[in-house]
Amino acid sequence: MLDLIAFDADDTLWHNETIYSLTQNKLKQLLSKYRNTDTLEDDLYATERRNLHYFGYGIKSFTLSMIETAIELTDGQIQGRDIEQIINFAREMLETPTQLLEHVEETIAALSKTHKLMIITKGDLFDQETKIAQSGLADYFTHIEIVSEKTAGTYQILLDKYNLNPSRFLMVGNSLRSDVLPAVEIGGRAVHIPYHITWQHETAANESQADYFELEHIGLLPGFIETLR
Amino acid sequence: MLDLIAFDADDTLWHNETIYSLTQNKLKQLLSKYRNTDTLEDDLYATERRNLHYFGYGIKSFTLSMIETAIELTDGQIQGRDIEQIINFAREMLETPTQLLEHVEETIAALSKTHKLMIITKGDLFDQETKIAQSGLADYFTHIEIVSEKTAGTYQILLDKYNLNPSRFLMVGNSLRSDVLPAVEIGGRAVHIPYHITWQHETAANESQADYFELEHIGLLPGFIETLR
Repeated sequence: MLDLIAFDADDTLWHNETIYSLTQNKLKQLLSKYRNTDTLEDDLYATERRNLHYFGYGIKSFTLSMIETAIELTDGQIQGRDIEQIINFAREMLETPTQLLEHVEETIAALSKTHKLMIITKGDLFDQETKIAQSGLADYFTHIEIVSEKTAGTYQILLDKYNLNPSRFLMVGNSLRSDVLPAVEIGGRAVHIPYHITWQHETAANESQADYFELEHIGLLPGFIETLR
Repeated sequence: MLDLIAFDADDTLWHNETIYSLTQNKLKQLLSKYRNTDTLEDDLYATERRNLHYFGYGIKSFTLSMIETAIELTDGQIQGRDIEQIINFAREMLETPTQLLEHVEETIAALSKTHKLMIITKGDLFDQETKIAQSGLADYFTHIEIVSEKTAGTYQILLDKYNLNPSRFLMVGNSLRSDVLPAVEIGGRAVHIPYHITWQHETAANESQADYFELEHIGLLPGFIETLR
């Protein structure tokens, strides 16, 4: 039934949003000596949204937005050494070892014996390559694609590139907005596996009533795929 | 004689280092009210080198290094609003329209009629995609590859991926370190077209006495390729 199964990476194969969330807490702590930080999460997200068009996704972009938000929230009063701390947060994020989600290793190993597998991940090339290398999973995947945005157009280009029939293509990921809805839009199949935290930017309503499957964790995927045959 | 001609992008197809250089001058100006900035260029490069392992190439990485250097050089005295200025420099860099080098448009158009062409560029995915789109050249290239580093290993992987014979592969670029020497190392041919500014990091001595060609500008490339036949 399937010629290829594609996986999102961040929060689908390994933990990611937890690291951003922890870092946001560090920033909150750092800024608490200057002012009340109750609105920090929304303020930071507003800066990130504004900067997305310039800086794209990833840790460096997030860091520039943290610095900018910190300057705005403190009305320019933040000390240089505290901004240096924010850059240190970025290095700590980048030094955090890639931690696979539960069931990932055995599931990917098993599926690689019966199917061609691909990673389709968006974000910073450098961050993503580092995580893919650290994950130890690279050899299970026939193709690895790092893209700057995951829209229906992106999926169409990749399917054309690898000469794939959308009805025999399955996309697996934690983001309705980036993994599920655009894959369904171009006629593909999709499995949504929610992660316990979702970045505001990745939330989406299923307004088009797209037809997709939902699984609780990736370990259930091989059994689900059997039912497709 | 050639199955494919690959081009570096920054400072080979369009201006790039000039924008970094102009921005460095703006930083120098900004910091001059705090201290003597005679050593700024070397100080900034030292920070960039140290950060390369964490942040990779590109404007965001450069910006984080500018901020860090500014904090260090002012011993933490730099004002938040001045750091905001540095982030504005980054947005200005990203808003600078991609400006093709002389002779590029007609040369690429002409060569695309007789040869398969590829871009092999390193750096930030988001920056590079933006510049490729803006350049108006994308349709002339059969393949576009954005990589995080350009070593002999990188070239070998790409030649394997596209099933190319190195002796029938020509790499064209402005950097001896990233374009010329590694391409020659894997048995490819290379043309060096120097740009008028070279980032310290891209300088290299031709210690292995690698055999490559040098042209003054890209407009001379079609005539040179004729001589290879």
